[in-house]
Amino acid sequence: MKRKFVHNIIQEIKQRWSPRAFNLEKIPEEDIQAIIEAACYAPSCFNEQPWRFLIASEESELNMMRDLLTEKNQRWAKKAPVLILVIAHRYFAYNGKENRWHQFDSGTAWGYLSLEAQKRGLITHGMGGFKNQKTRDSLNISEEYEIIAVIAIGKLGNKDELEEEFKKEEYPSTRRPIKETAWRLTQFLD
Amino acid sequence: MKRKFVHNIIQEIKQRWSPRAFNLEKIPEEDIQAIIEAACYAPSCFNEQPWRFLIASEESELNMMRDLLTEKNQRWAKKAPVLILVIAHRYFAYNGKENRWHQFDSGTAWGYLSLEAQKRGLITHGMGGFKNQKTRDSLNISEEYEIIAVIAIGKLGNKDELEEEFKKEEYPSTRRPIKETAWRLTQFLD
Repeated sequence: MKRKFVHNIIQEIKQRWSPRAFNLEKIPEEDIQAIIEAACYAPSCFNEQPWRFLIASEESELNMMRDLLTEKNQRWAKKAPVLILVIAHRYFAYNGKENRWHQFDSGTAWGYLSLEAQKRGLITHGMGGFKNQKTRDSLNISEEYEIIAVIAIGKLGNKDELEEEFKKEEYPSTRRPIKETAWRLTQFLD
Repeated sequence: MKRKFVHNIIQEIKQRWSPRAFNLEKIPEEDIQAIIEAACYAPSCFNEQPWRFLIASEESELNMMRDLLTEKNQRWAKKAPVLILVIAHRYFAYNGKENRWHQFDSGTAWGYLSLEAQKRGLITHGMGGFKNQKTRDSLNISEEYEIIAVIAIGKLGNKDELEEEFKKEEYPSTRRPIKETAWRLTQFLD
């Protein structure tokens, strides 16, 4: 099935999907900095900006980060020239209480990051598949932070070089019909 | 302090902020549908699309939704012509297990929504300040869903009509320096 857009929405949103076919080409430092800057301008509760990003782009860093992924993700993400770990601060800086929006707000930042990458001709693929405890231990991440996702960033590679298992999923995924996602309040209460 | 952008990032990201000064002008249905469509094309873990949106735009719906906000938010959000409640499905549809990314992914969808609104000349303001239990009870939202935020959407109004308390915060907020948000992995481990 192909994506069919009803409305004229932002180009980068229409074009973005989550390929696994990366090529090995390095990403300019300028692009990495720009997508992080874009992420930071996401809105957040009390402007807490609970998101934090750990960036791997040198070979030694990439090796360390790849090692934290599940075996299945390692098999394709090994080619990605940039891997970014997203962690989120659980507490409000201003009063020390739990910030119940720390994951939600970090997701917003990831959204902005993904679109800025798309604008720059880069692909992104977010992964929940990583070893949580091993990540915490080996990177020495304090319990104040929730470890959320690893994002692979790079240039689109050759689909044919993917393993069969991944090749068959290498296309933009479609979405549920809007009527199963959004309701008028009166309609919902009916 | 004014926002200073280092990189040439997406226009809508640069322009977006969270005003409280709404005017009463109605929003075309087309725009509401388009921003929801944009939200739906956010990436999510296993393409679960855990986000759901309850939309209030008719007077009776708006009255009901306003009543769920904290008193403080009611004071300015009463003018917003659209209020959207964001809720997130806690479990994976494919295996019934807890989806630990349901809030994160819903935040990504809200990010896309906010930028599509910006593109259409609409302002957005996300609120964590609402009465959680009252919302669950009065809208009869099952425990399978986390209730996350209410988003106000509309056209920018006159700042001078805001109460003093809000007037002094009516400008685009700045961000922490990047170096307090993102680190090279080697730098982080040093």
